[in-house]
Amino acid sequence: MKRLGVGLIGSGFMGKCHAQAFRAAPTFFALPREPALELLADIDAKTAQKAARALGFARSTGEWKTLVADPAVEVVSITTPTALHKPMALAALAAGKHVWCEKPVAASAADAREMAEAARKARAVTVVGFNYLRHPLIRLAREMVASGEIGEVIGFRGVHLEDYMADPKTPWVFRFDPAGGHGALSDIGSHILSVARHLAGEIAEVSGQLVTAIARRPAARGSAKTRAVEVDDQARALLRFASGATGSIEASWIAWGRKLTLAFELTGSKGTILLDFERMNELQIFTAGQRRGRAGFKTILAGPDHPPYGSFTPAPGHHIGFNDLKTIEAKMLIEAIAGGPPAWPDFEDAWHIQQAIDAIALSARERRWVRTSDL
Amino acid sequence: MKRLGVGLIGSGFMGKCHAQAFRAAPTFFALPREPALELLADIDAKTAQKAARALGFARSTGEWKTLVADPAVEVVSITTPTALHKPMALAALAAGKHVWCEKPVAASAADAREMAEAARKARAVTVVGFNYLRHPLIRLAREMVASGEIGEVIGFRGVHLEDYMADPKTPWVFRFDPAGGHGALSDIGSHILSVARHLAGEIAEVSGQLVTAIARRPAARGSAKTRAVEVDDQARALLRFASGATGSIEASWIAWGRKLTLAFELTGSKGTILLDFERMNELQIFTAGQRRGRAGFKTILAGPDHPPYGSFTPAPGHHIGFNDLKTIEAKMLIEAIAGGPPAWPDFEDAWHIQQAIDAIALSARERRWVRTSDL
Amino acid sequence: MKRLGVGLIGSGFMGKCHAQAFRAAPTFFALPREPALELLADIDAKTAQKAARALGFARSTGEWKTLVADPAVEVVSITTPTALHKPMALAALAAGKHVWCEKPVAASAADAREMAEAARKARAVTVVGFNYLRHPLIRLAREMVASGEIGEVIGFRGVHLEDYMADPKTPWVFRFDPAGGHGALSDIGSHILSVARHLAGEIAEVSGQLVTAIARRPAARGSAKTRAVEVDDQARALLRFASGATGSIEASWIAWGRKLTLAFELTGSKGTILLDFERMNELQIFTAGQRRGRAGFKTILAGPDHPPYGSFTPAPGHHIGFNDLKTIEAKMLIEAIAGGPPAWPDFEDAWHIQQAIDAIALSARERRWVRTSDL
Amino acid sequence: MKRLGVGLIGSGFMGKCHAQAFRAAPTFFALPREPALELLADIDAKTAQKAARALGFARSTGEWKTLVADPAVEVVSITTPTALHKPMALAALAAGKHVWCEKPVAASAADAREMAEAARKARAVTVVGFNYLRHPLIRLAREMVASGEIGEVIGFRGVHLEDYMADPKTPWVFRFDPAGGHGALSDIGSHILSVARHLAGEIAEVSGQLVTAIARRPAARGSAKTRAVEVDDQARALLRFASGATGSIEASWIAWGRKLTLAFELTGSKGTILLDFERMNELQIFTAGQRRGRAGFKTILAGPDHPPYGSFTPAPGHHIGFNDLKTIEAKMLIEAIAGGPPAWPDFEDAWHIQQAIDAIALSARERRWVRTSDL
Repeated sequence: MKRLGVGLIGSGFMGKCHAQAFRAAPTFFALPREPALELLADIDAKTAQKAARALGFARSTGEWKTLVADPAVEVVSITTPTALHKPMALAALAAGKHVWCEKPVAASAADAREMAEAARKARAVTVVGFNYLRHPLIRLAREMVASGEIGEVIGFRGVHLEDYMADPKTPWVFRFDPAGGHGALSDIGSHILSVARHLAGEIAEVSGQLVTAIARRPAARGSAKTRAVEVDDQARALLRFASGATGSIEASWIAWGRKLTLAFELTGSKGTILLDFERMNELQIFTAGQRRGRAGFKTILAGPDHPPYGSFTPAPGHHIGFNDLKTIEAKMLIEAIAGGPPAWPDFEDAWHIQQAIDAIALSARERRWVRTSDL
Repeated sequence: MKRLGVGLIGSGFMGKCHAQAFRAAPTFFALPREPALELLADIDAKTAQKAARALGFARSTGEWKTLVADPAVEVVSITTPTALHKPMALAALAAGKHVWCEKPVAASAADAREMAEAARKARAVTVVGFNYLRHPLIRLAREMVASGEIGEVIGFRGVHLEDYMADPKTPWVFRFDPAGGHGALSDIGSHILSVARHLAGEIAEVSGQLVTAIARRPAARGSAKTRAVEVDDQARALLRFASGATGSIEASWIAWGRKLTLAFELTGSKGTILLDFERMNELQIFTAGQRRGRAGFKTILAGPDHPPYGSFTPAPGHHIGFNDLKTIEAKMLIEAIAGGPPAWPDFEDAWHIQQAIDAIALSARERRWVRTSDL
Repeated sequence: MKRLGVGLIGSGFMGKCHAQAFRAAPTFFALPREPALELLADIDAKTAQKAARALGFARSTGEWKTLVADPAVEVVSITTPTALHKPMALAALAAGKHVWCEKPVAASAADAREMAEAARKARAVTVVGFNYLRHPLIRLAREMVASGEIGEVIGFRGVHLEDYMADPKTPWVFRFDPAGGHGALSDIGSHILSVARHLAGEIAEVSGQLVTAIARRPAARGSAKTRAVEVDDQARALLRFASGATGSIEASWIAWGRKLTLAFELTGSKGTILLDFERMNELQIFTAGQRRGRAGFKTILAGPDHPPYGSFTPAPGHHIGFNDLKTIEAKMLIEAIAGGPPAWPDFEDAWHIQQAIDAIALSARERRWVRTSDL
Repeated sequence: MKRLGVGLIGSGFMGKCHAQAFRAAPTFFALPREPALELLADIDAKTAQKAARALGFARSTGEWKTLVADPAVEVVSITTPTALHKPMALAALAAGKHVWCEKPVAASAADAREMAEAARKARAVTVVGFNYLRHPLIRLAREMVASGEIGEVIGFRGVHLEDYMADPKTPWVFRFDPAGGHGALSDIGSHILSVARHLAGEIAEVSGQLVTAIARRPAARGSAKTRAVEVDDQARALLRFASGATGSIEASWIAWGRKLTLAFELTGSKGTILLDFERMNELQIFTAGQRRGRAGFKTILAGPDHPPYGSFTPAPGHHIGFNDLKTIEAKMLIEAIAGGPPAWPDFEDAWHIQQAIDAIALSARERRWVRTSDL
């Protein structure tokens, strides 16, 4: 089978995920191309070498530009801090590579648009790592919407809550750097906005609120010196969708006790869908018109009736996990590169998500409703 | 024991609740006064007579003004449509009666203020029927906040979702009448706002969104004629509390499948409290600083350690129900009338809740943030 | 309306429940007779007098035999320790009274049979306080079984778990007295057996296991002296029903953290019903033949479609509580006395439940399967 | 790194799992040996060839004896129907191979003992596929027991419920063949027995009940011809552990709606642990001595504090799935082969589990308590 040369930039949490996904994808799916882990780039040669060995890459480099130019690399995975996504993606696209980029795609909608345009011009396959959209139950939810099972969508309330920044002693890290965009809004708000858009359509207008509840952080772990936090740790917005549906989102990385509360309630004119990724293998649905005395929410457990769950195990209710989502993402990327169905969300989609992010921030700053198309 | 003459205006859902609560209160609590169901007023003499018999009232009248003037009546329960609350309450107060009024207290903040002023002047006991605040677990939540168990409150996200208006065939009823204020916002949004204020303090500023998703309703049950709906069936708002905490609320009476999703997440600097009235006897708490590998949300079942649960049953986890909340409300009212601790929420409290309601509606109309103190 | 003279023996947890239920029943139900709290008997005159005042009884006595003979008393509520049920019930029946007796009905199946025979001979109305059977969702479960919604019943697994005896420092009390029968098996095992029999039919044969995990208890609260515990604190049994269905039960009063885990799984040839009284207002049902990809357990919230829920509140999902179950029990008793539908479970039913209890204990002792009809 | 030659017999559900686990293990763990998928054997050459290609094996054969003798194969994975486990395992051990065998290990305790003896004599590494024991939260539960966090274990109630045989139209397959042992008892009862033994210690004595609720099945899919079912589809047992603790298990493959209800309640003298694999990333714990009014079950989400969760993702609450359990199993096997800590459960452990299985069946047949050591 023809190989697909993979280059990975970054080897942290998400770098590992990409590497594992490339390795796992051919195990679970019959793929048209066999990913080959060619080259890994990281902050310096030594770090890169160590990571390459751990993650199974053939070669390594301390220069990402070297990776982008490497002829054996056909697809570039970008898993660095957000501020670096644009230069790396543009260079990769310019070098004729396909790109798998982590979210948020860029620090601003303007940057995201530039990336989307470059991708279009390059006719490259691009995928942005909104991995939760890969879950078979999100696919089910979208099918239910499309088939009219809950009627017309009239409301969406979504949250993405975690607590990885809840402890005020958690030190300043790159995620607090405004150069990467916003705070919780960019980091996890982007996820719930991606879900909102996937299920309820384009977001037209927002009224936002950004809050920095913990104003200063230790400059480094254990340091007595502190550093001001300039980005939000709680973000909220009222939404109006292009369809006329309305809703809200909230993102917080200081929500004590929450680990993956990426949850939504999708209200239709004939039913309701609920999903919470802390129980990611359960979807709840209520439909109008049930028999009197027998009506209620039904809990559907992910199973082989919900593709591509069956590629992982034939047994329903046996659970897929977080890494499996990334494996599905890699599969879609590889198939698209081989000429299969288009991959999504691509840079174009990510740009629209970024518009919503920036609109929320602008709205919060100017205390007025803002159209996403203005960003 | 000295009797307490009770007059009840209205005998629908809430009228029955008041009657039952007055009868049940002395069964569960040692009270300083014995409620005596003296007089019931309804729309006409016949309706009133029938209701009086069913609910155990000694006498009946088709004229609420007669009731308000009756010398045997010391406390007047008002359970009529909202638009009537103000004239009835003002008349009762003027006649020297104490007043137990259903929520929302009035059609507007201006009306509510007038009622609060009249109550203050009359030195009367007033209680407004925000019955969910009576739950022992809401009391527990408030104690946890007060004691600092979750640190300083920094976020509140609350919803009140039901589906009693979700079916477009549900005909126009008084709840759709703008003379009574707003729609879902007034009817159940008032509940979640009462909870927000109880736990996170006064609401200072809001950005609101009101939506009428079902624009026309049958004029009457089964009627082919339709009538325009002028009030909201979905209401949302971003909130800023006087304390600096922030949050949001949503109210919807068209949320298919939801029966009593009066639920909130209260985020503090050191922990989180969750409560959902569809499981009203369970409160969840997460606190910072738990042992590594053993941290998690704890589910506390209502029990005799949570007063006044023990007045209903000594056995924990054995459940109190909706009517018990109303019984606790009656108990507080009776004790306050007999000179015990002040009852709450009184007309003053209800006025502030009404300010938040009106501010949300104004904000939605004018698409800008509105201060509650401007209403 | 004709009054119904009530006599109550005992004024502890269950005594209060009976009193409250008699007072609440006419508030929620249109009844043919009006209960009048005539006479309360307790261990001595002083205790009885105090309790009578607190619970609203007109008179009191320190002699239960006086109560049983009182001409104003038509129905006798027996809420004393189990060992006393038989003499009191037999005396009441002999005096021409109806009887509402707490569970377990007697210390042995032999005693229970004697009581059932006396009741039959006296043509009296008898009701035994298996209050959980009163829940509207148990009624729903039974209707589902009867209508074939889950096919033929093939399995029942039930538990009743609480932790009121889990602390080894909890002192010896009457519940540990073998004169009252067994331990957890009698006290709460009787509840789950009553549910098993109600939903799956008569229990034919059992293999039992009784365990006394905490062998000695303080003789009194705080006492250094201890006393041997002779009854079980964990009881388990395999069951064969007369229908051929099979199953198991477990009862434990030392199940740390459990407050009212009276829960069961009822498996049919075409579906499954689940109920857990710690969430007593939720029933779950799965039925065969659901659409592929859309199958799951449905959660039904108790509401007015589940009689007699609607007598308490017209709003679904608003919760009835423990005391409401007792109120439903009182209603059924009063109606049966007035010539309405027969009340149940009566002494005959309770005898059969007692046979299962005794069979489990005998089986545990002799380490063999035992037929309930042998007891 | 030194390679580890892998031979796989069988390529169904579990065959795929083994293949995937061998491929995934080095992605997530730093391993001392690199698994190389050498040879796959299946029912015939053609089937084997196709499977080898799909699962990434270098070679294939239609003769398992060829595989067992192959010098490049160091470890043999056995994933065939149970009846074949013994001859294959004995041949592999005789050929000096290590063995990873699916559960149940054998059709009888006698066979299992023979296998355990052969493994001991061969000084081979053996692992039996009780994959649920690999879950980080099972490891946590065991640590809690060991550390005394719930005191002394006094009760265990476990079930394994699925519905893959609930439909009477599901045809006769090898799982119904008594040559493989029992029915639900062997197939999934073995899992819950493995959990019982892992957490509460050796099972000493049982009283069992086996039921065949669906007596005949179509001989093949869609066939009008039927075939008698001789094995159980519901199995239950009361248990006495060697420690003196008591409990029960139930296994059913006809439990409509259940997909992976492998669930238990472990009661200790100072607390309780709950786990249900339908929510496999949540463990609940209640401990005695919590503050009054604040006591409750705590829900712990699997995270990096629970090894080896962190090898899959650093983010807590982000879920591992079913295949990850098998990957952990492969990791342990590979490490043990390379001289690391002993792998478990090995054939010796599996023999003891098989003793419990056979004891339950014998007890059911003879209607008496049976000691596991008698089997």
